[in-house]
Amino acid sequence: MQFINIANEGVKSLSPYQAGKPIEELERELGIQNIVKLASNENPFGFPESAKQAIIQQLNDLTRYPDSNGFELKKAIAEKFDLDMSQITLGNGSNDLLELFAHTFASEQDEIIYSQYAFIVYPLVTKAINAIAREVPAKNWGHNLSGFLKVINQKTKLIYIANPNNPTGNFLSQSEIEHFLFQVPEHIIVVLDEAYTEFTAPEERINSFALAKQYPNLIICRTFSKAYGLAGLRIGYAVSHPEIADLLNRVRQPFNCNSLALAAAIAVINDNEFVKKVAENNRLEMKRYEDFCLKHQLHYIPSKANFITIDFKQPASKIYEDLLREGVIVRPIAGYGLPNHLRVSIGLPEENTKFFTALTAILKKIIILATQ
Amino acid sequence: MQFINIANEGVKSLSPYQAGKPIEELERELGIQNIVKLASNENPFGFPESAKQAIIQQLNDLTRYPDSNGFELKKAIAEKFDLDMSQITLGNGSNDLLELFAHTFASEQDEIIYSQYAFIVYPLVTKAINAIAREVPAKNWGHNLSGFLKVINQKTKLIYIANPNNPTGNFLSQSEIEHFLFQVPEHIIVVLDEAYTEFTAPEERINSFALAKQYPNLIICRTFSKAYGLAGLRIGYAVSHPEIADLLNRVRQPFNCNSLALAAAIAVINDNEFVKKVAENNRLEMKRYEDFCLKHQLHYIPSKANFITIDFKQPASKIYEDLLREGVIVRPIAGYGLPNHLRVSIGLPEENTKFFTALTAILKKIIILATQ
Repeated sequence: MQFINIANEGVKSLSPYQAGKPIEELERELGIQNIVKLASNENPFGFPESAKQAIIQQLNDLTRYPDSNGFELKKAIAEKFDLDMSQITLGNGSNDLLELFAHTFASEQDEIIYSQYAFIVYPLVTKAINAIAREVPAKNWGHNLSGFLKVINQKTKLIYIANPNNPTGNFLSQSEIEHFLFQVPEHIIVVLDEAYTEFTAPEERINSFALAKQYPNLIICRTFSKAYGLAGLRIGYAVSHPEIADLLNRVRQPFNCNSLALAAAIAVINDNEFVKKVAENNRLEMKRYEDFCLKHQLHYIPSKANFITIDFKQPASKIYEDLLREGVIVRPIAGYGLPNHLRVSIGLPEENTKFFTALTAILKKIIILATQ
Repeated sequence: MQFINIANEGVKSLSPYQAGKPIEELERELGIQNIVKLASNENPFGFPESAKQAIIQQLNDLTRYPDSNGFELKKAIAEKFDLDMSQITLGNGSNDLLELFAHTFASEQDEIIYSQYAFIVYPLVTKAINAIAREVPAKNWGHNLSGFLKVINQKTKLIYIANPNNPTGNFLSQSEIEHFLFQVPEHIIVVLDEAYTEFTAPEERINSFALAKQYPNLIICRTFSKAYGLAGLRIGYAVSHPEIADLLNRVRQPFNCNSLALAAAIAVINDNEFVKKVAENNRLEMKRYEDFCLKHQLHYIPSKANFITIDFKQPASKIYEDLLREGVIVRPIAGYGLPNHLRVSIGLPEENTKFFTALTAILKKIIILATQ
């Protein structure tokens, strides 16, 4: 009996998601210490103190199921962004929500549109539910929204847009998004995945919640995993028309969000100082990365997120391996169809310095070898 | 635009899961304190100390994503039960796994078999994916496995069995399960949901992991939410043939299990004293419930789990409401088609005493009213 034969059609060709290499794994493999992980766009500042305190206060309540409706967190999100609680759906990280949109609105043979080089969860869930993928070729590594419009047809159910995009960092402006939404038929759900929005300068950000009021078919998806530093806890949220939120809340698992993630998110959502510190470090250090790339004549994709993607113009796997040996973990993105690129998360100043030093040495060796 | 019209077919008629009433909600509503919650089959002993310590040690690591493969927890489960790690799939509570089985092996118009009065997640996920539900009428409130065999046909993909069953507590013996598995075609996945197995006396339990070796189409599903007391954290596991586990691991969300749930589960899985204390309390207190029912001539369904379901032979909603006013939350199960029953979780001795006292007073009033 080959069980793959009885699996759902889309599942048969599904490859597992490749996570960033954990620090412990590299420690085991190479027996080295002081490893710097710049591979998963995680928050380089330790876990926020406010969240820590919230968790400690909850420790005795964990034999109880979480609040299935996430009342307090929804209230906090609604108050912060001047939304109605009925617009909010909570998820076990935004990954949970991204899948939930597909499970709610798309079935076998429906069409789902997303961009080449966009977040890999979009093609994974499309395949898992055996929907038809419409991958639109990228323009300068980012979304080509006029290309999106061209592939919309009767079977289109769902459109995913990542802004800023992961793994390339590309950014679509307010007017580009508005121009696009204006032309999308109202019965097609558009997901705007803003996992990295807190790293974009406030004056450049899209007024996405206002757009969601104007375009009821628009869902905004956010996460606490990045700027808020709660990746290990798994919590994200979606903002949409209340009718869409009602449908999503019927389909989600009743206890998809755990008690500690709920408590921690409530604590950090108003921890403006923490997020400000994180964004400011990102801004300053991104500039160092850009300067480094310019100095070493490395091509990079300008990024509005907390990572930068460098094009080495040659297969980057060797450089990735060499960086590992120097104790620096970055992210190979050959799985995204970008074998010459490496994605590097912006870390703390000293972590980034370690990366610069390691890469400088590796690049020197490459040049020496090439000239021999 | 009515968004329900563009939702997936099965989603349109989906009702949200009704969770047990939270203590805080009743406090707000009635302004009373010292409420006893016997509504969600939660562990009445506080959060295990071993898990608490494990969480505190992880607090600084939560900006990192969880280990996507749950290596250490799988290792601990494999060692404890003499399994191979490749047989294990971890879930965000067993609910996550129960849905995952359907998402992996069943599509629209496939048939899924489960029992009348079985755990409500089976019909919910069947509807959500627009599969065809084959609900087999119960026998004495429990599974009628010969009835299951009769409805198997070419379209059957998945069978759910809860043992002990929730919300009725019925139990199927080793020989009943074996007799059934022997007759199920090997291309049909059988899920044995053992969320409550730790409350069944060890000598009565089914040797389910051995059965999973004998019948490769069998998946065993377990949770840390009940006897282990981790309901708020969300963690469960499935044991299956490695090929099935490989498929499940492709479909699950890459970070479905959060870091603290993984750490706490590793700590409690070998906390035998805690689980023993929990099971012993359950055994002794279940006897008190049975004695109470006999004394008051209340019909109950004999249960091998950590709850008892009482048949009041009249609509139980009034009794449920009266119990709320006395500060005792139990679980109405009209949503299961059992409007005359209430499901009561076995609590600590003093919690159960409070329930007995409250119900005794309520029953007296009913008798007085009836004789007036």
